[in-house]
Amino acid sequence: MKKVINNPDNVVQETIEGFIAANKHLYKKVENVNGVIRKDLKDKVAVVTGGGSGHEPLFIGLVGEGLADGVALGNVFAAPTPYNVQEVAKAVDAGKGVLFVYGNYSGDVLNFDMAVELLELDDINCKTVLVTDDVASAPVERKADRRGIAGDIFVVKIAGAAAEKGLCLEEVANIAQRANDQTFSIGVGLSPGTIPGVKELPYTLGDDEIEVGMGIHGEPGVERTKLKPADELTDNLMEILLEEGNIVAGDEVSVLVNGLGSTTLMELLIVNRRVEHILEQRGIRAYDMDVNSYCTTQEMGGFSITLLKLDDELKELYNAPAYSPYYKK
Amino acid sequence: MKKVINNPDNVVQETIEGFIAANKHLYKKVENVNGVIRKDLKDKVAVVTGGGSGHEPLFIGLVGEGLADGVALGNVFAAPTPYNVQEVAKAVDAGKGVLFVYGNYSGDVLNFDMAVELLELDDINCKTVLVTDDVASAPVERKADRRGIAGDIFVVKIAGAAAEKGLCLEEVANIAQRANDQTFSIGVGLSPGTIPGVKELPYTLGDDEIEVGMGIHGEPGVERTKLKPADELTDNLMEILLEEGNIVAGDEVSVLVNGLGSTTLMELLIVNRRVEHILEQRGIRAYDMDVNSYCTTQEMGGFSITLLKLDDELKELYNAPAYSPYYKK
Repeated sequence: MKKVINNPDNVVQETIEGFIAANKHLYKKVENVNGVIRKDLKDKVAVVTGGGSGHEPLFIGLVGEGLADGVALGNVFAAPTPYNVQEVAKAVDAGKGVLFVYGNYSGDVLNFDMAVELLELDDINCKTVLVTDDVASAPVERKADRRGIAGDIFVVKIAGAAAEKGLCLEEVANIAQRANDQTFSIGVGLSPGTIPGVKELPYTLGDDEIEVGMGIHGEPGVERTKLKPADELTDNLMEILLEEGNIVAGDEVSVLVNGLGSTTLMELLIVNRRVEHILEQRGIRAYDMDVNSYCTTQEMGGFSITLLKLDDELKELYNAPAYSPYYKK
Repeated sequence: MKKVINNPDNVVQETIEGFIAANKHLYKKVENVNGVIRKDLKDKVAVVTGGGSGHEPLFIGLVGEGLADGVALGNVFAAPTPYNVQEVAKAVDAGKGVLFVYGNYSGDVLNFDMAVELLELDDINCKTVLVTDDVASAPVERKADRRGIAGDIFVVKIAGAAAEKGLCLEEVANIAQRANDQTFSIGVGLSPGTIPGVKELPYTLGDDEIEVGMGIHGEPGVERTKLKPADELTDNLMEILLEEGNIVAGDEVSVLVNGLGSTTLMELLIVNRRVEHILEQRGIRAYDMDVNSYCTTQEMGGFSITLLKLDDELKELYNAPAYSPYYKK
């Protein structure tokens, strides 16, 4: 796979430099670590996200007004170090505590938790909400074991809006937790993405094969099957999500149809068209539909659908202004 | 190539349906043709863009406040019909005339020009500005023969802002023409994209080969070479653009680093980092840097760099608010 990079060891550092070059008025790098923070920090609870790089615009594109205040970036598909997380948190803390919101992967949990211990020695109050939206990654009885995928966007959005509103750390954590509990995603992989500097593909799929429920690092899904027409595939995925979320007539949802990298916006819009038909048929209101490639796996082919089941409070926070170069509300 | 579609013959229609499903409050389809217009049309010169589908978010994503008022969409990589263009123009005309802004391709020119003739019979005043930003597509002596690529975004942005400001048709056309004259792009292809329903690749490139100056439908470029490090490649492309545009110390430019489909945002940001270094070294001010995949060729690998050389009037119009789900200022 051809990549437009320099030294593969420097991709994260250079990605950050390119991001800040384009947005100097808004962001600055945290000294000594691969972290980025807002320049216009406010006197409020700080929200910090992060995880492995390679999923751009996630996570760097989730920093901004009404979103996260800082991001800790690991190497490609690797967790940020505890020191990295700690430095980012210290850089954004305004004395009102820090909420960490990130996807539930063991490496991330280990390192963020270690950072929390270190931060508590500095008297910085921390709470954590793990994003566990991927319904294909564990059965419902083990919901806390599920991985986080594109649902990160919704949970960070809600947490950021709650913090911006002036809620205290516990309140922000509670509402972010509720957002996560109401967020349900499932993805489908069509073709692998590659890691910069690595020639081997992380997995292979046949010319007409897809994997339903595949994770964003190529983790195994729930079913390997033949490629189906977009409508049939969308029907299958929506059936699973609506049942998981117990989403029924009269409910309102925010929808995210997320591309995994090389899947075109044309295809995502075709999927979205079917999502809207299904919701309409069932009397469920599509409060908002966002069709974009926010949570990618390099040039992986495929997409995911995410539903956030709304209530009045979540709706208000979902609607609040948010701005990053890659996520605007 | 696996595509998430239904019938390949319906991809454009279904893409439009998916786009409108997600943005019902903003857009509506034009009856009987593959065209989309803003719902909140204003009493001003109308701006219409369009061209072949398959480049999403272009062109459908360029309709909105401060951008185009309507878009005429052909089949994948095929010009819209004269009737399609005519119907879109009639739907957006407010009696102050219509400016067509689109990329310079013979099929598009033929059909848009035929539409202009038909519209003049209806007493609708029309003007056309062809986007010719691709410096690799013809030598400077034949600038009018050059193709339009990602520069469409800058020229439509400027035209839309000028129309929104209340300028007359001739004035909007003049400033859009100046924007085009000051817009310079060059692309590089790494791997082909595929047309829905077509198994054959439009071209092939070796495992370590790239093509400098390749067009957005795989048109031949100026040099087939080995993949180079991102910095070296960016240096080569910027050298060409700065010379073409006679952009020197003290000038100000808006930059667009545009992905062609499957090239990751990580790679685009790494390129942007180098673009900023080069501009800084030469004393050229990067007034704005936008790093995104706006003008794609399905899942083609590669990117382009576009520079818009600014003057005071262009800067004011560049800065004016603009909103579509895929282009926000």
